[in-house]
Formats: sequence, structure tokens, C-alpha cells
Amino acid sequence: MLDEDGLVVTNQGLSATCRRAAFLERSKGVLSQPSSGPIQLYFEDLHIGQRFTSGAYYMDAARIKSFAAEFDPQPFHLDEVAARSTIFKGLSASGLHTLAVSMRLLVTGGLPSANGLIGLGGELTWPKPTRPGDTLRVESEIVEILPSRSKPNQGSAKVRSTTLNQVGEAVLIFTAEMLVFKSAST
Amino acid sequence: MLDEDGLVVTNQGLSATCRRAAFLERSKGVLSQPSSGPIQLYFEDLHIGQRFTSGAYYMDAARIKSFAAEFDPQPFHLDEVAARSTIFKGLSASGLHTLAVSMRLLVTGGLPSANGLIGLGGELTWPKPTRPGDTLRVESEIVEILPSRSKPNQGSAKVRSTTLNQVGEAVLIFTAEMLVFKSAST
Repeated sequence: MLDEDGLVVTNQGLSATCRRAAFLERSKGVLSQPSSGPIQLYFEDLHIGQRFTSGAYYMDAARIKSFAAEFDPQPFHLDEVAARSTIFKGLSASGLHTLAVSMRLLVTGGLPSANGLIGLGGELTWPKPTRPGDTLRVESEIVEILPSRSKPNQGSAKVRSTTLNQVGEAVLIFTAEMLVFKSAST
Repeated sequence: MLDEDGLVVTNQGLSATCRRAAFLERSKGVLSQPSSGPIQLYFEDLHIGQRFTSGAYYMDAARIKSFAAEFDPQPFHLDEVAARSTIFKGLSASGLHTLAVSMRLLVTGGLPSANGLIGLGGELTWPKPTRPGDTLRVESEIVEILPSRSKPNQGSAKVRSTTLNQVGEAVLIFTAEMLVFKSAST
């Protein structure tokens, strides 16, 4: 976790309650690192405009190819030479791989939420391909908050997550509706 | 490939051109099996209301857990016992895993397209969780066809793909905008 001056600070030794309070204070601005402890954000902790930043993930060519072989076996995701003569002009990760890695970054601190990250649905677009050697991170912003009409202990939040490569280009924009619980429900 | 009476027929011995012609004839109705040969559908072969059905994919508990460990490490995707006390009331696949498997089913014959399946973006929703032991298939329908304004050799098609489990419940509905090439472009 970074403090206001961008220095790395640690939550070691703080109680979970303390970490939550400290995190809420800090998350008014953009974080450059994900949380380092089991932070639990509830529905009532969220506000529109609140922003979060994940850690980073390195995309290596071998995993790009093996992911594609299992889930998206197309030449532009499988083989450097074959990929050159396609619209991608070179090896690119499956869009599903970029999305899966983005989910990992969100779950592992990029979007702290009590009771986990449960997506109800969303909209996505891939503005640019992900390439071998890219380092990805995800920046998220709460864009809408909706209490549940039927369930008093929960609500949903619309979160716009942008996955960026190491030069700041967006490779995925995913606006997801997430199920979020109120603290009284636990 | 199934013929009109639901019998399995084979494309063995047919030329690629013949397979394409036979496929176009058959794809006026719903197919129950994906294509068995390298069928190449181009932009001009598509029409609104055209439907396709993929092959099937079995979701086993071990792969549900290992996928989640890598991309969506949350208790309800990782461990049967821990999952019982969550909103899912038991182990469920990551929505990203369901989506990745659906992509595999589309790429391996569920949605034949010349030059591959290149998604520009889309909307998705997960109406029900995928469970260990589920067998998934994907039914797709062309819902919109748009020529490119700037590139004469390509266009896009909006395809609504519904991933169904073995009892016909929808576990994912993904409406994707796909890039599609015209035959003259190859």
C-alpha cells in the first residue's frame, strides 16, 4: 500500500478493523498497490468515484500459448510465425486470457470486497491486444451503487475496471455489476 | 454434423468448398453438432437469425479448482466445504472459467468463421452457476450484421451465445460483436 507521498507502507501489526479503517481513508485517492491484508469492504463502505488499483501481472509467451491451446486455439494466440500473417501481426493473448488475468488482479487485492467478488454480468471491450512481455494492472472505479429491492442485506455496485499495459494503453475495459453485501449480513 | 433427421453424418471425402456449401444449407436450422471440417464462413454467408450449436464440454471439479487457483481464487470456486457456507451453497466454477470453456466450444466448431473468431467486445451475464459434473454446450444466433464503414473487406456481426448445462439451464449469455471478413479479402 502506498501512502500519500507514494512511499510503500505496510499494514503489518494492524488489526483487521484498523486495516479496514486505514484502507477506507486511503482509498479516497488512487492506490498504486493492492491491499496487503484481508481488507473487507461492505456495501456501505462504497461510494461513487471511489478508485482502486491492483498489483501487476507479467504475461509470458508460454502461458499465452498454453491458455489459448486449452480455451481459444486460434493461430494468432498459438504461434508467433502464424500470427504474423493475421490481423494481429504477431502473437497476442486471447481476450479471455486478458480477462482472466484481470480477474486475478481484482481478486488478489485490486478490488477488496467482503464476501468476495461475485459478478452478475457486465460489458467488455478489448481496445488493443495484449502482447507477450506486457505487464498488466487494473484500475477500477465505482460508477453506480444500487441497493437490492428484495434483499435488505445486499446490493450491487457497477465497477468500471480498465486493464492497462506497461505503457498505459487500455487492453480491456470491463464494466461489471458486482454483488456486494452489507456489513450487518455477516 | 447432424442431418435433418438428427442422424450423424460425416463430411469425410468432401472438398472444403463442398463442406462450406453443405454447411450453409444445413445451418438454416439448428445444428446439434459442430462442424467436423475446416468450414469457412465469410461476412456474406451470414444472415440474421442464423443459428449454430457447439459440441459439448464436461466440467470436472479438479479443473474448476485449478482454474480458480490461477485466475479467481475465491472459496466458492476452490473448496467444496468452504463453498457450502457461501451464497453459492456449494462449489461453482468461476464465471471466467464458464466463459473460457464457452469460447473453446465456439472456436472448435460452435461458430465457424473465416479468419477466426475475433471479438471486439460484448455484454455478458451469468444467470446460474456452473457446477462440477455439468456438461456445457453453446447455442449461438446472429442478431445483427454491420458492414464496416471504413474497411471494405470486413464487417462485424453481433452474435448472442447462450451456454447451457445438461438440463438446458442458461449459465452464461454472451452477446459479442465479432469481426468478420468478406471472402474477397482472403
